[in-house]
Amino acid sequence: MRINLERLMARLGALAMVGAIDGNGVCRLALSDEDRAGRDLVLGWMRELGLDITIDRIGNVVGVRKGREAGAAVMTGSHIDTVATGGRYDGNLGVLAGLEVVETLNDAAITTQKPLAVAFFTNEEGVRYAPDMMGSAVHQGQFDLDEMLAVVGVDGSTLGDELMRIGYAGDMPVGQQRALSFVELHIEQGPLLEAENIQIGAVEKVQGISWTEYLLNGTANHAGTTPMRLRHDAGFVAAAITREARQIASDMGGDQVATVGVTELTPNLINVIAKQARLTVDMRNTDNAKLVDAEQRMTNFVAEVCETEGVAFKSRSLVRLEPVSFDSNMVSLIADTAQSLGFSVKRMPSGAGHDAQMFAPNCPTAMIFVPSRNGISHNVAEYTEPEQLRAGADVLLQVLLAKAQ
Amino acid sequence: MRINLERLMARLGALAMVGAIDGNGVCRLALSDEDRAGRDLVLGWMRELGLDITIDRIGNVVGVRKGREAGAAVMTGSHIDTVATGGRYDGNLGVLAGLEVVETLNDAAITTQKPLAVAFFTNEEGVRYAPDMMGSAVHQGQFDLDEMLAVVGVDGSTLGDELMRIGYAGDMPVGQQRALSFVELHIEQGPLLEAENIQIGAVEKVQGISWTEYLLNGTANHAGTTPMRLRHDAGFVAAAITREARQIASDMGGDQVATVGVTELTPNLINVIAKQARLTVDMRNTDNAKLVDAEQRMTNFVAEVCETEGVAFKSRSLVRLEPVSFDSNMVSLIADTAQSLGFSVKRMPSGAGHDAQMFAPNCPTAMIFVPSRNGISHNVAEYTEPEQLRAGADVLLQVLLAKAQ
Repeated sequence: MRINLERLMARLGALAMVGAIDGNGVCRLALSDEDRAGRDLVLGWMRELGLDITIDRIGNVVGVRKGREAGAAVMTGSHIDTVATGGRYDGNLGVLAGLEVVETLNDAAITTQKPLAVAFFTNEEGVRYAPDMMGSAVHQGQFDLDEMLAVVGVDGSTLGDELMRIGYAGDMPVGQQRALSFVELHIEQGPLLEAENIQIGAVEKVQGISWTEYLLNGTANHAGTTPMRLRHDAGFVAAAITREARQIASDMGGDQVATVGVTELTPNLINVIAKQARLTVDMRNTDNAKLVDAEQRMTNFVAEVCETEGVAFKSRSLVRLEPVSFDSNMVSLIADTAQSLGFSVKRMPSGAGHDAQMFAPNCPTAMIFVPSRNGISHNVAEYTEPEQLRAGADVLLQVLLAKAQ
Repeated sequence: MRINLERLMARLGALAMVGAIDGNGVCRLALSDEDRAGRDLVLGWMRELGLDITIDRIGNVVGVRKGREAGAAVMTGSHIDTVATGGRYDGNLGVLAGLEVVETLNDAAITTQKPLAVAFFTNEEGVRYAPDMMGSAVHQGQFDLDEMLAVVGVDGSTLGDELMRIGYAGDMPVGQQRALSFVELHIEQGPLLEAENIQIGAVEKVQGISWTEYLLNGTANHAGTTPMRLRHDAGFVAAAITREARQIASDMGGDQVATVGVTELTPNLINVIAKQARLTVDMRNTDNAKLVDAEQRMTNFVAEVCETEGVAFKSRSLVRLEPVSFDSNMVSLIADTAQSLGFSVKRMPSGAGHDAQMFAPNCPTAMIFVPSRNGISHNVAEYTEPEQLRAGADVLLQVLLAKAQ
């Protein structure tokens, strides 16, 4: 039994029409009109496939295919909201491959032992409303529902109001549709599978994330008349921190990454020594102890370089998520299934956050990755080849079947 | 014979009222209404002092005090335009101290052998119209008059039109009022005199200036999913260049300075590896051969780090001015005069550009510096103590007298 690639591609294509932007991209920010239209479309497909649909109070939509038993379901799913310059695969693939699995089972007239559920979760991207992975986190009791409904977005709107406005403030209590296990198919959003020419990633872990913002306060002064020894150059300190981030990742090796994505100087003039700098440090590791080491090393470095340069600093933690380990049996099931279907497979961490990680503390959970061309996502150029999509959906089908029988 | 400090302070205070801004600062951008009002005020004083006034085609104003001989004059002067957040001393001191010297000579009924001229030059700051030191450069034949009149400012206005509008498009051919020698009194705009508690700087040289803009093109990618070895991080390269600038200055020592004042990342997001960076490198040295070395080292470094990181770059020279050496006899005259008046004196370079440097190739030229509190200028906090102003003006008086007798 295999999934129908044509049907999967057709649904991906149809959903990508909703909020389409130039370059084959998609903009469906959470709870926007486009998100509503995307939800309506997917909900219609769920109904056509005969799923029992519930919408919970944060707008998560779960469609259940009955099993021989009632109760908690073997669950799959992802999200259909996108970033402002999103592609058509991120999130959408996991949801629509879930529907394709359901239709394949329907066609084969197979009834599983356990119920099978396909879900899409509200506001995974966190672009319009922070934090990200919101719907799945509320579903799994990791964020508070009322706090999230009160979140004010970058456009000044309130999440609860917008949920109401688009008609997706459901009445199902969050988490009522329980998951026996959870597996999510997703594009890698990184370059590793493509670089090693591997078809399937069996995701073992999600990296812990540490985001810190530094505000540096030096002294603005004339770039010509101020001797080097008398400088308090916030721009120089920002550069030293950026270079240290690279050095930390390089020294630690493994899957430690470190990035300074934001640097802003004030006054940002060619002949004025920078008075202020704002920069952010993003560090990730799958091992929390190592991530703590990296953070500590950066903290020490910043204090030292600021002291030497005579620059004051303030730091603020923006995000701190511990690494998540997926269930080893689930990971093995994915890897073994992929191999038995003839696909090359790699056990790997995820560098990005995903809805699945919210389920990991509560039920056996893992993820299936398929390659991303050039590692690109959150970009209209996001692309995964149809045969790679097929491979991922076929693995998903067999893993769900194995868990549900 | 000494200058009258009270009178000098009164003129500095009166001129600072024109275009006054909060915090005791001044905004008189070149050829603005405020510049016109400032010019009118200074021109009035020149008339009261009995000077023969000419205005040339770029708006430079020269007031000549007759000597026993006619012909080329012993000239002093500076500028009265300011930056947007300027102080009351930068430029203004040199002009008004020149007038104070004239009034002191008038009071003493001294007629010098040579004519004495006090000038203020158009658009020294170069904030509204680039390049800076424009009027003095045109006066000394270093820039072309018609090209400069056609310069379009940051506000879209044309320099020649604005000169006409404010009534300072004179009919005197530029350079017609020749200088036998030129000496300019100016605030240091740097911290050296204050740091060493010295009253007078005898300026030997003006640093050469090298401004280069770098545009770096890497690849935007996910900060979590992109392994360090696969990155093409424009932000990292910008930081490496910034650190190299510091390293070059540190290795070369002497008066070599290097500054990265501008750094801008694109997209400048916390979890996205920077695709693009724009930065500027400002390097200065009084020795052109050393400045060329510094430039070469930076050029090599940028090529190397870009190659290693897989980042493309474009560079553009924004400004390249060779160092200027002042006349050693003039410098000695200033130093000796200062000492004979009982002031401590330091021979030093200027890190900033000044009108005087345009005269240096054509006649014996030098500059007198007085201390800047905390080295601050181009800032409303710019300050020099009255007694330090007096010292500078007294040295100017004696140097002009020595040259004109």
